[in-house]
Parts: sequence; structure tokens; C-alpha cells
Amino acid sequence: MEEPVGVRPSVVIVGAGFGGLRLARGLSRAPVDVIIIDRHNYHTFVPLLYQVATAGLEPEAIAQPIRHILRGVPNVRFRLSTVTGVDLTRRVVTTDSGEIRYDYLVLAAGSTTSYFGLDSVVQVTSALRDLDDAEGVRDQILGAFEAASAEEDPDRRRQLLTLIVVGGGPTGVELAGALAELRRHVLPHDYPDLDLSCAHIILLEATDRILPGMPPGLQAKALAKLSELGVEICLRAPVADADANGVTLSNGEMIPAGAVIWVAGMRAPPLAEAVLTARDSGGRLIVSRTLHLPGHPEVYVIGDMAHVGDPETPPHPMLAPVAIQQGALVAENILRSLAGKPPKRFVYKDWGTMVTIGRNAAVAHVFGLRLSGFIAWLIWLTVHLVWLIGFRNRTLVLVNWAWNYLTYDRAVRLIRRTASRQRISNRNGEAT
Amino acid sequence: MEEPVGVRPSVVIVGAGFGGLRLARGLSRAPVDVIIIDRHNYHTFVPLLYQVATAGLEPEAIAQPIRHILRGVPNVRFRLSTVTGVDLTRRVVTTDSGEIRYDYLVLAAGSTTSYFGLDSVVQVTSALRDLDDAEGVRDQILGAFEAASAEEDPDRRRQLLTLIVVGGGPTGVELAGALAELRRHVLPHDYPDLDLSCAHIILLEATDRILPGMPPGLQAKALAKLSELGVEICLRAPVADADANGVTLSNGEMIPAGAVIWVAGMRAPPLAEAVLTARDSGGRLIVSRTLHLPGHPEVYVIGDMAHVGDPETPPHPMLAPVAIQQGALVAENILRSLAGKPPKRFVYKDWGTMVTIGRNAAVAHVFGLRLSGFIAWLIWLTVHLVWLIGFRNRTLVLVNWAWNYLTYDRAVRLIRRTASRQRISNRNGEAT
Repeated sequence: MEEPVGVRPSVVIVGAGFGGLRLARGLSRAPVDVIIIDRHNYHTFVPLLYQVATAGLEPEAIAQPIRHILRGVPNVRFRLSTVTGVDLTRRVVTTDSGEIRYDYLVLAAGSTTSYFGLDSVVQVTSALRDLDDAEGVRDQILGAFEAASAEEDPDRRRQLLTLIVVGGGPTGVELAGALAELRRHVLPHDYPDLDLSCAHIILLEATDRILPGMPPGLQAKALAKLSELGVEICLRAPVADADANGVTLSNGEMIPAGAVIWVAGMRAPPLAEAVLTARDSGGRLIVSRTLHLPGHPEVYVIGDMAHVGDPETPPHPMLAPVAIQQGALVAENILRSLAGKPPKRFVYKDWGTMVTIGRNAAVAHVFGLRLSGFIAWLIWLTVHLVWLIGFRNRTLVLVNWAWNYLTYDRAVRLIRRTASRQRISNRNGEAT
Repeated sequence: MEEPVGVRPSVVIVGAGFGGLRLARGLSRAPVDVIIIDRHNYHTFVPLLYQVATAGLEPEAIAQPIRHILRGVPNVRFRLSTVTGVDLTRRVVTTDSGEIRYDYLVLAAGSTTSYFGLDSVVQVTSALRDLDDAEGVRDQILGAFEAASAEEDPDRRRQLLTLIVVGGGPTGVELAGALAELRRHVLPHDYPDLDLSCAHIILLEATDRILPGMPPGLQAKALAKLSELGVEICLRAPVADADANGVTLSNGEMIPAGAVIWVAGMRAPPLAEAVLTARDSGGRLIVSRTLHLPGHPEVYVIGDMAHVGDPETPPHPMLAPVAIQQGALVAENILRSLAGKPPKRFVYKDWGTMVTIGRNAAVAHVFGLRLSGFIAWLIWLTVHLVWLIGFRNRTLVLVNWAWNYLTYDRAVRLIRRTASRQRISNRNGEAT
């Protein structure tokens, strides 16, 4: 078991996402020793994963080494480990590289893909929650096109060229829009032999609308823009099953596809189950309004894992700004606790949300304004560029985006994982 | 079985490396239909793999989609497949996605790592022949440092911080130099807690000198520069065995290590064995001076797979310029064959070789000149930038190199493969 250096209180942060990093920075001058644990040695800029999945950005453009981010913060140390459990009594977290004792613990481990109990779906679809997922989606899409270009049977070719996005939330909409642009501007040059009129991009949504958090007017604008880009949108179309050939809807309709990307929902990660306190239906840990576990003022939960307050009221949206604001508050509350002051309550400042749909097109609901089209897209672009942590990554993204915009190209069209190529060829074979 | 389109002769090229792509370009206006087959959908700029392995460049910076390279060349089609065999009688190549008939066949499948029959070595060392290897090396090195930072036993920490490069050829020298710079300029900032004075970089070479193709004066300069950078060089130190704890030399000495990178040799790929004609001791196919298989004027072999002429004389070096010149000649010879003219013989124009050792340091033997130090490094930099295929990749590389040079940083310090992290943690555990 690793003992913290010195006699200062030790703060252990699980997860180096937006919330965990904000918290670590908030404690940089505090009289505490901080250990931040993550299963990756890099921070992922999750909002742009869909651009890696559609070959617009290289993975490295949206990932930053955690040790680099924490340079010059002497009281914060990084540990590359997977946290497997928490012992609230002994005040210890268990990791795959040993136990770590804490005085304060902050769980900020994010979320994982929710399959709503559809086990079959897990095996045959790609998720989009981390960099490996994003590269996997990219490989699967490009692999399906490669397989189609070598396929002589027109039905199987049509199947391979059909891409299904399940889930009409922000990620599904951004992904479908980016796929439509990939099909329109890039693939015709790469596959001159393929008839791309049979390349379908289908967005399946279980409810009767896309972008549930947005005002109805912007939902309609997003819907219209996606249709204009050639995305086929099926509302009230819940997926009941999936196999290597495609998905089956709850009405029994079977849609053959070359790739299925599942962005239909998120839930708390398995770590939340290892903490034996109350959880909501999404697996999130119920925390007080001051963000700590009931009965454990030394254990905080922030971000996607946390359900603040009454479990009967809806949780905060699983968005980066929530995690960041909670990270900032927990830093403050730990300092207050050290000073013997009572903790502050969390109040979410909702500055709005925005979703990009394609070239020059986005919808944004910010500061009460409802914006769409080019102006919303410019705001989206600016916010994301400024937000991206680290000067160098920003440069890389800028170079890529400028290239993509000016040339209509997507330069990162590499298929890197043999495993997913194997899956494609199985899919291809099984369709025989 | 796929029949070529139209009645024009079909040319099948196996491998989209330097030789295969040069050949495809050489045939772009010829009255032939070309199919180029590769197991990756991208061309890899192999000379810079060591920079990906040492976190200086992202993988995408040295990979270019083959379909992108071949845009605007209507008579060349790309097929993503692994070639498993050749039937010289039926004039057919077998792939994992079916058979392809040829009128002319050009084998340009490059080379693979040679382990000199040391099976144990295959399991526990990393090679450096393709992008996956390079990412694997990067993950293993960074993973060893992460494991060391969480390790309390000083002996095991010293082991994890010891990196061994086996092979004193150009790749081994460039890799060892880049590792030394990584240790000196980057890791001290990332691991302020680690005592990097016990971080050893050891270059093992079986013979009595490094860079065998270079003039002795430049060999000595390279040796001196590596020593100055802190690389420990062991000459006459052939490796006899390796396990998860390190390597054992033929004199029985055991050197514990956190990562072992094997760049000691290359041989022809398994495909060469599937062609049932004469091969040399390195597995290369013996071809005539006009580069075709004996008795098969319709089958050419170029690049690392080919041994031109007398099997008793040394083959051409396994270098990109040889493959490129041979690709150009085979394009010409196919055109001559179509015109009923006799083929031309291959004569290698050796413009020289160069090896970079570190910041501002290289050795170059070009046009008969023996250069070293800053001037050689500038030439190396210029040649490689101009050579890199595709404007965009060049921009990316330029941005990266400028960043690395100005800041002494290496920005791509990401550990991406869980598998290799697993290997590290096993290695760590087994050392107990």
C-alpha cells in the first residue's frame, strides 16, 4: 500500500477527465498531496471523438498526456492504473497496481455506453466513448467501404455501404452529419468505382425527436439540415436486436448494414457499483447538494457518475461543463473543510449547448439565444478551439480543420486495427 | 475470382511500399489495368518509424491513405487484402478476399523482422517494421516509465528504467539516439519523482561495429555522439536469449530491462516462401538482372524481397532508394515487353546513406562526401521532408519537428494499447 508523502492530507482523484483535471488544478496551491489516477496516460477531449471516428482528426489531436497537463504542479502526482474498488471504511481505493490510502476521495470516472440490457448489441456494434472506440469506428466504416469495393454481389455491396447510427442525441447527430460529409466530399474520390447512391446513412432514434435538450425550433432545424445532407432519419424506431448483418427494430423490421455505431445512451461506469451506496436508474451515485456521498463527507462524486440531490428529479446532463463546475466546487469545498468551514452547495450554471451538423451548419442554444446555420457553426468552432487543452493540440486541430475545410478532404483515412478488419471480413462472409 | 476490367493486360502489384507505388505511378499512362494490393490501406514512411516509437511524431504523420496517393490515376485500382500465395502456372495470386488473375505480377512486399531463429525473442521484444510496431514500442517504453514511477523496490525500478536496443544498424542507432533525447529532455519533466540517473539506454550489437555500410570514420563519429548522449554501447555482444526480465548475451551475461526493442535484422516476408523458386539465405527471391523470376518473364520481384543476380554476391541493401529505382525500371520493362522490346538490366545508383543520431547530429555519406554534425543533420532533415509523400503529411511533420526542436518536447506521449500495458504489468509482476 502506498502512503502519501509527508503528513499533509492526501486527496485521491479517480479519473482525469474534465472534472478531475479541473479539481486537480483547483488544489494546486492547497496544503494537500494529490494523486490523480486514470486508466489512460492521456486526457481525452471527448466532444471531438466523432471527428476522429470520421477521419477528420488524428487521435493525437484530441488527446493530451496527463503528465504534460500537470507539469509545474508539484503537489499533484499521476498514477496510471485502473481503479477496481473503494473501501469506504478503511479509506482506501483498490487499483490494479495496489491500494492507495486517502483522506479525501473524489470519484470522477465519467460514464460508459448504455446498451439498455441488449447484450447482442454489445458484440456487433461500435461505441464512441474513448479514443480506442473512435479509431474502431473509423476502421469499421472505412473497412466496410473497402470490403464493398471488392464485392461483386450488389445486395451485399449495398449492405456494406449502409451505415447506421443509433441514437439521436448530440453525438448521434454530429456523427451522422460528419458521415454524410465524408460520403459526399471524400469517398467519391477514393472509390471512383463504387456507386455511392446506394451508400445510406441512417439515424435511428427511439423517441419522437432528436436533440432532446434543445428547443423544438432548433430540433427542427437540425432535422432539416441532416435530411439536406442525405441522412435518413427514423424516429420512434427503437432497436430490439442486432447481429453481424445489421439491426432489427422493435417493429420487426431488419435493416442490413456494414457498420452500426451505438451512441444511444450512457450510464455510470462499473466503479459506481463497487461503491455500496444508493444509485439511480442510470447507475449514478446519489450525492448531497454539496457533492459528497451521504454519511461520507470525505468522499465526493462529480461529473457523469453523480446524481446530485433528490433521486426522483432528473440528474444534471452528462456534459463537460457540469463536471468542470463540480470539480471547481469540490476543490473549494475541500479547502473549506480543511479550514473548518461548512461546504458550499452546487448550482449548475447552464451556459447552453451546441451541436455541429456539418460544414457551416450547427445549432446552438446559448445564453438564451437560439442560433443556427453559419453563425452557430462559427461559435461552435471558436468555443471548441479555445477550449481544447494545450496550445499544441489546438495548432494541430486548427491545421486539420483548415485543411478539411479548404480541400473538402479528410486526411486521416487510415485503417489501423486488424481486429476490426477481421470483423468486417466476417460480416462480409456471414452475409453470403 | 476477379477478372480484370476490359481486355488490356492486367498488372498486379503486391505491396504499396516505396517500390510498389513508384511502379504504379510509372504505369499511370500505360495501356494496362493495374491492381495494387496491400494489407494496410495506407503507405508507411518507414524511415521515420523510430520517431513514432519515441513519441516525436503521431502515426498519422508518416502514413498516407493509398487511395489518396492514387487519386487521379484511373488505371490503378487498390485492393485491401493480404496476399497468401502465388500460382505461377495459373497466373493467379491468392488473397484473403479471393483470387486475382494477372498478366504481369510484381512482388514488392518488403521485409519482415529477422530473429535468427531465436523464438524466445519473438515473444518478449518489440520489433519496428510497421506503424503498429512503432506504437507498440512507444507504449512499451512509456508504460515501463509509468510502472517505474509506481514502483518502490529500487532494483525493479532500475530494471524498468533500462531500455535495450538490439542491433547497431541505422534503425538501432537512430532509435537509441532518439531515446537518449527523450530521456534527457522530456522524461525529467514528466517524472520529477524518478531518479533518471538509473535510466539506462543500452545498444547491443553482435559484430564489432555499428552502421556496417558506413565509412569507418563516420562509424566512429556516430559512436562518439551516441556515447555523448549517454547511450551505453556494447559491441561483440550477440543476444542468445530473452525473457520477460531482459536479455541474456551469448557470454551468459543477463541484462534486466523494462523494454527490449529488436532491430537486429530483416528478412524476406513469408510470401517469398510461397513462391517456389530459388531463395538466398535471407529468404529473398533470386531474380535475374532484369528483375524477373528465372523462367517467368511476367513475374518481377523488387525491393527488400529481391536478390538481384548471383546468389553468392551480397544483395542490394534493403533501402527505399533501391526499391524506388527497381519500381521505376520494372514499369519501363513492362512497357518494353508490351512493345516487344527486350528488358533493361538494373543498375543501382547509390546516392549514399545518412543516419540521424539526435538534435543537430547526423552522419551522411552522400555523393562520395563524408559529412557529420549539424550540416549532415540539416541535409537529413531536408531530404526527409522533401521525400515525405503528400503535402499535408509534410506540414504535419514540419509542425511537429519545429515544436520538438524549439521546446525540447515530444508531444505524442500517449499509451494507446492496453495489450502492451498488460505486458508491462506482467513484466513488472514477474520481476518480483
